Amino acid sequence: MASKASSSSSIPSTPLLKDELDIVIPTIRNLDFLEMWRPFFQPYHLIIVQDGDPSKTIKVPEGFDYELYNRNDINRILGPKASCISFKDSACRCFGYMVSKKKYIYTIDDDCFVAKDPSGKEINALQQHIKNLLSPSTPFFFNTLYDPYREGADFVRGYPFSLREGAKTAVSHGLWLNIPDYDAPTQLVKPRERNQRYVDAVLTIPKGTLFPMCGMNLAFDRELIGPAMYFGLMGDGQPIGRYDDMWAGWCVKVSLSNGLNAFLCSVFCEVICDHLGLGVKTGLPYIWHSKASNPFVNLKKEYNGIFWQEDIIPFFQSATLPKECITVQKCYFELSKQVKEKLGKIDPYFNKLADAMVTWIEAWDQLNPSGTATVLANGSTKGK
Amino acid sequence: MASKASSSSSIPSTPLLKDELDIVIPTIRNLDFLEMWRPFFQPYHLIIVQDGDPSKTIKVPEGFDYELYNRNDINRILGPKASCISFKDSACRCFGYMVSKKKYIYTIDDDCFVAKDPSGKEINALQQHIKNLLSPSTPFFFNTLYDPYREGADFVRGYPFSLREGAKTAVSHGLWLNIPDYDAPTQLVKPRERNQRYVDAVLTIPKGTLFPMCGMNLAFDRELIGPAMYFGLMGDGQPIGRYDDMWAGWCVKVSLSNGLNAFLCSVFCEVICDHLGLGVKTGLPYIWHSKASNPFVNLKKEYNGIFWQEDIIPFFQSATLPKECITVQKCYFELSKQVKEKLGKIDPYFNKLADAMVTWIEAWDQLNPSGTATVLANGSTKGK
Repeated sequence: MASKASSSSSIPSTPLLKDELDIVIPTIRNLDFLEMWRPFFQPYHLIIVQDGDPSKTIKVPEGFDYELYNRNDINRILGPKASCISFKDSACRCFGYMVSKKKYIYTIDDDCFVAKDPSGKEINALQQHIKNLLSPSTPFFFNTLYDPYREGADFVRGYPFSLREGAKTAVSHGLWLNIPDYDAPTQLVKPRERNQRYVDAVLTIPKGTLFPMCGMNLAFDRELIGPAMYFGLMGDGQPIGRYDDMWAGWCVKVSLSNGLNAFLCSVFCEVICDHLGLGVKTGLPYIWHSKASNPFVNLKKEYNGIFWQEDIIPFFQSATLPKECITVQKCYFELSKQVKEKLGKIDPYFNKLADAMVTWIEAWDQLNPSGTATVLANGSTKGK
Repeated sequence: MASKASSSSSIPSTPLLKDELDIVIPTIRNLDFLEMWRPFFQPYHLIIVQDGDPSKTIKVPEGFDYELYNRNDINRILGPKASCISFKDSACRCFGYMVSKKKYIYTIDDDCFVAKDPSGKEINALQQHIKNLLSPSTPFFFNTLYDPYREGADFVRGYPFSLREGAKTAVSHGLWLNIPDYDAPTQLVKPRERNQRYVDAVLTIPKGTLFPMCGMNLAFDRELIGPAMYFGLMGDGQPIGRYDDMWAGWCVKVSLSNGLNAFLCSVFCEVICDHLGLGVKTGLPYIWHSKASNPFVNLKKEYNGIFWQEDIIPFFQSATLPKECITVQKCYFELSKQVKEKLGKIDPYFNKLADAMVTWIEAWDQLNPSGTATVLANGSTKGK
């Protein structure tokens, strides 16, 4: 293996962060899947967001520390603002992000199990996410040997030295072995496809590049980016589903880019402006995704999104946020305005979504009255 | 493995392309390293660019089909324009790109050997490069499962359908096991570091993202991008070395982006405009890089570059090319003007380099009088 002595920038051992991280699980069934995760998840607090019929009882295996919210709880806690939380859709998970008081969130679907690495060893997905979140990202320039902070790796020749401090990591996007996260048309065309390739890499998604963020196996720094992690209006009463995590990913990436531009400027223009850019990583860890959802049901949920997406992506690609947007909240408010203005023409749904984005932020600030306003573009700002 | 029936977009078998590809090798020594590559390289024509003392004889193992150019040949063929070709630096390899008449180029350093994959099988690097070049790139949106055209993979949920046809691939950037491509400071700090991680992935470097392109194990479509693959003025008489491939990479990426923007516009604005965007891939294949070059010598070559790079990168990041630049040549001419204007202030070297960029294009067009003008931004254009 590589010389350990000199890898001063890598994380020597991964802390548990058990008092700083909540695991958020949306579900409609008993959480038997937790048995397999017990060695890895039991030290953590779980926030379970029960979807669908609130009179149903969800069984949680013994020994786990958890709080569980059903629809009645959400309505009680948020009052009329509960309208921004989706019903009969796993998008409801974002309620868990809002009620958490921790710095980090890990969210996982209840059909995801512990995967094995090529040596047959069980993968502690959460540990890898923590590693990803605690080490910097490199959104401003691509490193061909992937994560330069990993042991045995570094920045390659030609990587600007001024950028080697990297940026804070806001999101760690993990992948899936077995059932890949395909859309309904691909599921229909490739019913037998399984992901069997373990790619031993973590990489930063470059600044200005959008990606499809999947909520199945996802961790993020709630303090840095929480208010932008809204999973939208999906499911019951809505004309769309299965775009909840995508929507959040695009909003997060755009909000981040704004901060990133400020950071890039600070690096090259020599403005004193530390800790401002934020990065998104993807790759390790893998989980084992056990079961494909029904492609026919999925097609019904997705088909509006398939059309709308062709306008949504260019919208996000060209969206810019004014310099005054120095907190995630402000970025998100501004984005909601632009959604209404630019996407409202496509379908009235986007007007409703834009309103829900505002409600979401209001509800977030109500439950998180102080200290969660993230400073994106100015190190000295503390307010919202 | 994945269902083969439905992977209609993957390349079923890799053609040899032996009449369409030249292997370019810059060297100062006998090419004994070719013995190990014999099973893979013997079907191809080699262009050997001898560096340094032209009176020295370079031995090439028997059975290889090759042409060899030393400095006297370069001077004879290019006349005064030979000034654009570096001397006593492997940057001289780009002369080989110019004299080739083939569609594709693969270039490799003479201290690179055949690597093995994790199963112990010898890697046919050239075959993987051909695979990379013949399958599309995805520069407009990030696919989290890496190359979607690879067997067993596809585009994930949330990837816009209009972008799934991809873009033409212009560059395939391969990696290195054993000795990583580090700069002198990193070599000095981590003398024992070896790259032992085989990452089983090929990915597209997103539009608008710069990367450090290493010339050690590199393939490209000469017809599409050849005129931008100039390795600059390095080595003898120049204040800089070891930035030859980097320079080419940044120029290529910027030229491509111009075309890419046009393509993106064509996709989303529904302008009829096929085959315009060009992509750059990195990842597989690996070669075995046998020996680290001397870090002290390297530091002497690099140190100006280490400073200058801090201005060069923002220059390339903000460089835009006018719409009239519809061929690689035109893009490159325009870029040379901007280099003079913006980088000339840093050091007179950049004025010399800008002039050499123009000389390079003139020499290229002299040796390639017709048919090599690449159409970047308008499908119907054939001229230069």
